[in-house]
Amino acid sequence: MDPFGILYTDLYQLTMGQVYFRMGLHEKEALFEAFYRRNPDYGAHQAGYTVFAGLDPLLSWMEEARFGEEEIAALRNLKSRSGKPLFAEDYLRYLKAMGGFSGLTLRALPEGRVAHPQVPLVSVEGPLLQAQLLETALLNRLNYETLIATKASRVREAAGEAVVLEFGLRRAPAKGGESATRASLIGGANRSSAVSLSHLLGLPASGTHAHSLVQAFMALGYSEEDAFRAFAEVFPDDAILLLDTVDTLHSGLPHAIRVFEELRRKGHRPVGVRIDSGDLAHLAIQVARELDRAGFPEVLIVLSGDLDELVIWQIKSQILEEAPRYGVDPDRLLKRLVYGVGTRMVVSWGAPALGGVYKLVAVRENGTWAPAMKVSNSLEKVLNPGHKRVYRVYDERGLATADLLALAEEEVREDAPLTLRHPTDPTKRRTLRPGSFRLEPLLEEVYRGRRLFPPLPLEELRKRRDRDVALLDPGVRRLVNPHVYHVSLTERLFALKEELVRRLEG
Amino acid sequence: MDPFGILYTDLYQLTMGQVYFRMGLHEKEALFEAFYRRNPDYGAHQAGYTVFAGLDPLLSWMEEARFGEEEIAALRNLKSRSGKPLFAEDYLRYLKAMGGFSGLTLRALPEGRVAHPQVPLVSVEGPLLQAQLLETALLNRLNYETLIATKASRVREAAGEAVVLEFGLRRAPAKGGESATRASLIGGANRSSAVSLSHLLGLPASGTHAHSLVQAFMALGYSEEDAFRAFAEVFPDDAILLLDTVDTLHSGLPHAIRVFEELRRKGHRPVGVRIDSGDLAHLAIQVARELDRAGFPEVLIVLSGDLDELVIWQIKSQILEEAPRYGVDPDRLLKRLVYGVGTRMVVSWGAPALGGVYKLVAVRENGTWAPAMKVSNSLEKVLNPGHKRVYRVYDERGLATADLLALAEEEVREDAPLTLRHPTDPTKRRTLRPGSFRLEPLLEEVYRGRRLFPPLPLEELRKRRDRDVALLDPGVRRLVNPHVYHVSLTERLFALKEELVRRLEG
Repeated sequence: MDPFGILYTDLYQLTMGQVYFRMGLHEKEALFEAFYRRNPDYGAHQAGYTVFAGLDPLLSWMEEARFGEEEIAALRNLKSRSGKPLFAEDYLRYLKAMGGFSGLTLRALPEGRVAHPQVPLVSVEGPLLQAQLLETALLNRLNYETLIATKASRVREAAGEAVVLEFGLRRAPAKGGESATRASLIGGANRSSAVSLSHLLGLPASGTHAHSLVQAFMALGYSEEDAFRAFAEVFPDDAILLLDTVDTLHSGLPHAIRVFEELRRKGHRPVGVRIDSGDLAHLAIQVARELDRAGFPEVLIVLSGDLDELVIWQIKSQILEEAPRYGVDPDRLLKRLVYGVGTRMVVSWGAPALGGVYKLVAVRENGTWAPAMKVSNSLEKVLNPGHKRVYRVYDERGLATADLLALAEEEVREDAPLTLRHPTDPTKRRTLRPGSFRLEPLLEEVYRGRRLFPPLPLEELRKRRDRDVALLDPGVRRLVNPHVYHVSLTERLFALKEELVRRLEG
Repeated sequence: MDPFGILYTDLYQLTMGQVYFRMGLHEKEALFEAFYRRNPDYGAHQAGYTVFAGLDPLLSWMEEARFGEEEIAALRNLKSRSGKPLFAEDYLRYLKAMGGFSGLTLRALPEGRVAHPQVPLVSVEGPLLQAQLLETALLNRLNYETLIATKASRVREAAGEAVVLEFGLRRAPAKGGESATRASLIGGANRSSAVSLSHLLGLPASGTHAHSLVQAFMALGYSEEDAFRAFAEVFPDDAILLLDTVDTLHSGLPHAIRVFEELRRKGHRPVGVRIDSGDLAHLAIQVARELDRAGFPEVLIVLSGDLDELVIWQIKSQILEEAPRYGVDPDRLLKRLVYGVGTRMVVSWGAPALGGVYKLVAVRENGTWAPAMKVSNSLEKVLNPGHKRVYRVYDERGLATADLLALAEEEVREDAPLTLRHPTDPTKRRTLRPGSFRLEPLLEEVYRGRRLFPPLPLEELRKRRDRDVALLDPGVRRLVNPHVYHVSLTERLFALKEELVRRLEG
């Protein structure tokens, strides 16, 4: 049995399915929404937005996932505490005949776009049983890829124009590395070192060499310089030499410069050096100075070793302060840096999970949508009920100023005053005058029994990310202590929510 | 192309391979070791040991992974910056003919056993190119599964005798969920909610129901009690009812008790309730009191919602303090608790990556092993060189007191005084007298061109974990501020290390 088939799910989806089936509710039209409640909080710092990712693999999975012989046999095998089968044969026959997710319609935020808390990222409409059954796989994929794309976007913000290489596969979560690489490349990394994954995404893999190359040569009686020379002979136009196996400044650097000089004499252009340990900013300054002196001002300096957005920020700040003391132009140095980011990107260091949820918000009964609620001890967990639409509101500068949740049946217009209500605080609202704002519907239909568009090239997803991030207020983009982006409700949706809470509490 | 085939690796493994190939070094016998440097540090607390996991899937992968047509075509496609192919045809032919990892021999700590920092967990011996090429896949699998098994082991320690259910798939790292579930079950979880994964591991999946069941019924005009009743009718011997969709004490609990009474009248035994939000310890006490009063002292209370080892510890402490005030026997209450642990186990909350490394430690030249070193700015990163053996040292109580690294060629005996050297501090040592200790060789040969044993049942791995944890000093097992377990070198290994550092620095 394929571990990642339709049974890559939690048991309770299937037990609830049997309850719906037995009660005749399994084909009631239901509406679920996926959203997350809070931006990732990395402890010392917090994200001001996320980058939505994971949708495309989910849609491909949905098209393939179905109950085949093996899946049904596995379910038949499960026993009740009474010793009898947990699942009845008529239910299993129904699942087999149902196949997979052919009854569902998904509307979703386009992958790669900037997303915000509480805003539905995907709405799933269709038979209650199928929609319920989708939960685990949907969250499994969207939570992780959105988390990693968000971290990568922050790394990209810190790195500015510099190239960011993802090389986290050795610390990535086993086969989750597939999603880690994809999401990193959507969120902000330029290239990945992962060979099969890059290939399948249509990008060339990227890389340098490891300490073991130098170690192997030295253990066999050669020198570090011999190892560099061998690498440069085999890859004369792609030589990036790792400096810190023995000693960055006193061994690696002079050896690399000697080999670079040989390359130059043969008409090749050395590409770069890499520093993987020590005081990276300080070493980068020293290395840049010596490379300049040796006539290699173009040679790149790749920095690596537990980098993330804060470490990159710190490195850049230190270079701006310290480089002039050594006669090195800091701006020119920053332009030749490349960041190799691994572990901390692929595990979203500091905030290793996104708590995205998938909640029933409405059920269709006699042709109309009945809103579903969950009343929780925490006001923040009270759902925004009912069948909704989502808009992004742009201000007069053209910047995104709020995401707006509205009821599906209400008309939200640009040519009338628009009141934005705080989602939980009844005292907070603001009203926009016509002409001062623009509305963009955010969700688009992406699946109706089958996916409606073929997978997009990664480049398209990156463009969406770049475009959306550029439309954020700089305060929201900030790495530390960002402005809170407004997520608001229309008057009508707010009123419905209030009414439902009252009704349930009463 | 299979994304998880032999090219589920970093590009630099293959570029270094071409350098070795061109220089005629690719079939030199090399020895790599995998180990990690520090136990997971969760910020507020730190692990005193790890549980080694991920080996079995790695060995299965090694047997399958090979360079086929698609892999060679993908590599042929990669270009140098000069525009020419990055990899030469003779090298690609060599890879194709080589196939996979048929030349390697692996010795490893048996999976499921307790492990410690700096101790080789796997040694890989064989042709330099093959051994180098294994790095990424090996670390990818071992790092993550060991990390999660360790977290699960801590959750198990906190939970004591109580059942722990893993239900983290919705927040697990995409397909990494496969490893998350497996490692959780090795490390300490009793069951998982993941259906396909449990099935493939030979365990029944476990689960309850979600809020959406109650929400769906209520949106369709039924009540919470109707939803509970429907669930109990379909699963009369497996009813675990979720209490907190509306209000745990004022709605969920009385409704559940009513449905339980009906079940009892029909001759069934209600199984449990689940509480997923709020002050879990306080609610558990109130719920236990009411269940007792209603004559259901055996009904389990499943707690869930961002649990980990510290939260479980806190819940138990609060119950011990608070339960007597409500006339509830805390010990009896603790015995009926079940912990549902999700997100924080499958992402190893607080320490989301294990920094395991794979280092070249020796190369065979003219029949003898030449030790390989990497000198780093940090003393902690200096490798323990050469071809080694690993022993676990047990004291007179039979408890594990240290792991000992020795040179492969030296004899380490139980019938002579044994000096344990600190791995980096030359002033620290202790000498054990004969008769006061026992030695256990830790690594066993598991792969020689192919795997030497079939995969073991999960139950065997769990037994190893239980046995090893029981042999730790209680101070090392402690959840917070654990004793440091000693990892030592023999006199001869320490002397070799000193000599190599001197030679390289000189």
